[in-house]
Amino acid sequence: MTESWATFGADLHLELTAGRGLRAGLAEALREAARSGRLAPGTRLPSSRSLAADLGIARNTVAEAYAELVAEGWLTARQGSGTRVAQRARPRRAAQPAPLRRPARPGYAYSLLPGTPDLGGFPRAAWLSAARRALAAAPNEAFGYGSDPRGRVELREALAGYLARARGVYADPERIVLCAGFVHGLMLLARVLRARRVREVAVEGYGLDVHRDLLAGAGLRTRAMGVDGAGAVTTGLPAEAGAVLLTPAHQFPTGAALTPARRTAVVDWARTTGGLVLEDDYDGEFRYDRQQIGALQGLDPDRVVYLGTASKSLAPGLRMGWMVVPAPALDEVLAMKGRVDWTSSALDQLTLAEFIRSGAYDRHVRSMRMRYRRRRDELVAAVSGRVGVSGIAAGLHAVLDLPPGTEREALRSAAWQGLAVQPLSFFRHPDAAVAARDALVVGYGTPPNSAWSATLAALVASLP
Amino acid sequence: MTESWATFGADLHLELTAGRGLRAGLAEALREAARSGRLAPGTRLPSSRSLAADLGIARNTVAEAYAELVAEGWLTARQGSGTRVAQRARPRRAAQPAPLRRPARPGYAYSLLPGTPDLGGFPRAAWLSAARRALAAAPNEAFGYGSDPRGRVELREALAGYLARARGVYADPERIVLCAGFVHGLMLLARVLRARRVREVAVEGYGLDVHRDLLAGAGLRTRAMGVDGAGAVTTGLPAEAGAVLLTPAHQFPTGAALTPARRTAVVDWARTTGGLVLEDDYDGEFRYDRQQIGALQGLDPDRVVYLGTASKSLAPGLRMGWMVVPAPALDEVLAMKGRVDWTSSALDQLTLAEFIRSGAYDRHVRSMRMRYRRRRDELVAAVSGRVGVSGIAAGLHAVLDLPPGTEREALRSAAWQGLAVQPLSFFRHPDAAVAARDALVVGYGTPPNSAWSATLAALVASLP
Repeated sequence: MTESWATFGADLHLELTAGRGLRAGLAEALREAARSGRLAPGTRLPSSRSLAADLGIARNTVAEAYAELVAEGWLTARQGSGTRVAQRARPRRAAQPAPLRRPARPGYAYSLLPGTPDLGGFPRAAWLSAARRALAAAPNEAFGYGSDPRGRVELREALAGYLARARGVYADPERIVLCAGFVHGLMLLARVLRARRVREVAVEGYGLDVHRDLLAGAGLRTRAMGVDGAGAVTTGLPAEAGAVLLTPAHQFPTGAALTPARRTAVVDWARTTGGLVLEDDYDGEFRYDRQQIGALQGLDPDRVVYLGTASKSLAPGLRMGWMVVPAPALDEVLAMKGRVDWTSSALDQLTLAEFIRSGAYDRHVRSMRMRYRRRRDELVAAVSGRVGVSGIAAGLHAVLDLPPGTEREALRSAAWQGLAVQPLSFFRHPDAAVAARDALVVGYGTPPNSAWSATLAALVASLP
Repeated sequence: MTESWATFGADLHLELTAGRGLRAGLAEALREAARSGRLAPGTRLPSSRSLAADLGIARNTVAEAYAELVAEGWLTARQGSGTRVAQRARPRRAAQPAPLRRPARPGYAYSLLPGTPDLGGFPRAAWLSAARRALAAAPNEAFGYGSDPRGRVELREALAGYLARARGVYADPERIVLCAGFVHGLMLLARVLRARRVREVAVEGYGLDVHRDLLAGAGLRTRAMGVDGAGAVTTGLPAEAGAVLLTPAHQFPTGAALTPARRTAVVDWARTTGGLVLEDDYDGEFRYDRQQIGALQGLDPDRVVYLGTASKSLAPGLRMGWMVVPAPALDEVLAMKGRVDWTSSALDQLTLAEFIRSGAYDRHVRSMRMRYRRRRDELVAAVSGRVGVSGIAAGLHAVLDLPPGTEREALRSAAWQGLAVQPLSFFRHPDAAVAARDALVVGYGTPPNSAWSATLAALVASLP
């Protein structure tokens, strides 16, 4: 049995050998992790209750393994500070070649980096069950190259129903194009824009560098729009921009919802100039307080490309995304994608179709929404009175506004706590005319349940 | 229950409603298919025995449904010519919008187009079982974006063992890069070559236009090598070519194995010029008569990029391929692929890893090899004395040499039989200095078992 202990951010695998007894196996796995440095000195372990729940074993088994390692000096246990890796457990330089499993962020025990859902929440049983039904029902030709670059019709039909119902998207299966996640979709669109001789795309002043780099790599300049409490400033967009990339439902990362006036403004711009609006609806499923905010695409399906993804609602590891493409641009997008669907596994497409059709997708989103809302409420309560919190009506992250001049100190303090967290400035477009703001972007969806309390505690301890 | 009837090439779905009784459901599905034109007039149906086996129902049920439709005039049954769709069953123009499920090759009842395995042979139960074990064992982080552009280490380790054992590849998991099939791998390599300022790639005089187009699309000229009974002519390669694309184990489509002397020649060329050899090992698993022919890559792992795929051994719909990249080129390939593994589902990668590790992959390849060998033997027996057959020591296709001047007539005759088949000239590089050859490329792996006899009969009837 191999279990990942995502608690530690750093991709720690506990190899629990079935034959050895769970306690002995767990103790040895922890010993090895401390010995090798995979668990850094000072790292706080999850409570025996949480870890037992995560691993699906008895709490006593974990408590006994912890006690054994405390006795050996690998761990320390102190009232109030929990169980931690002892300072004496210095990493020993391994003589063997570099391990294949490289931790994503060595040295960080906790992560509040935004962009990833709680991977421990992936609905393994329900997914497998959908895969079983999908495999049994799949026609033989589903295992072939696929004759439609849009991808499997079963998934496009299931998505059309879901997107219309849940996101107010004007979705016709004929105009849905499946892709390997948002980035793949954006890459295709960037190439379409270049083929149209577009040279410039307007992007939000705060956003992901990965997306800006991708556009630049395709030969497109990015022009920064301002971003304020009402979302991106979509008024006064220039005609030179051939497209606008937007996160209308929940601006990433500041968290605002684009106001109706600005929605109208960007659609008007598109109608006047013939430009395209690229709507990145990355976390539209997760809205907590107010009425659902529908997709911008509904305003003008002939001007807006809607881009959705399973990366936040299910898991990035599925590499599943979808575009709803305006009819006038469909042929260009399909020509760019190629004669066949080279990119996504047909079985995964059929499984997701069955997952949606059977209602499992709705159930999963509802259950995760409750989990994230609880965390959001705990986050707000924990920092209240010390820092300002915004962007919390939706999504898996929030922005904490720090007292001016304290950001650097907060980041240093977080690093000392073993907490990976990014400042708002990390997401700033180099040319953005936005006021400097001392703030942290807190991805509270990221930690697994067992690590949530400890991660929140590390964050609170980092604040000024 | 939805069943695909791949017999008909044209992607016919039989919607068998569970509650209606199988006979009535099957009859109605066939009636509807004939009425709508999805089954063209004249199309020969599989024998009741084959179809019953395909659908997993009793033979009598099929025979009764056939009899019912003959009585109604939808089908005709004649001694010696089997059951066919009647001429009176003219397609009726549908009033509703164009159907979403478009047949890949309308009008063809049988296909011997090469490049696809028998999709009916996909090991659904064993694959699902591997998926179940893989999902249960997957660490949480497997559901994340993935921190290694090479893809999951579990699959790279399983492939390294398999490729060394089965294909003689010098395979180190550190140098294996997973990709979404061969085309994705070739696209990455083409961009790497362009970044190296390579302008020309030598390709085989017979090969796939898709591959040549892809190289051209990346800005690379292709230069045609000659192809004869000893494979591609790799002697006298010019220094200007920055790479050579080869199918050494089983030249596609002529079927020759590259001789030892020509293997040595191409490796010498690579050592002298610093060029890369791209080894397309698309069907290396399927060798029938002689000793296995190992991969060229084993001769010089620092000069040869080995490319393998699950598209022939399992199914193209999985979109799974792998490259073993020479150490000196690894960083370039990874930089081109990107910071994370954007392309392939981590769950599929883990499932394939488990599928290989558990021995299911070996079992599947063995069983399909027997199936394809039986077909090859039947093909050879059926055409013997009428045309020459070559390229049959391995793979899923053969070349039938026709008497000079008869190719066009054979193709016309095949079309009249409803048989999709391609001439050898279809695969010829426009600049290739190869002698014109009247020949058909026969993908005998393509038909599902139930259609094999009828497809072979259609082929034989098409020959001069």
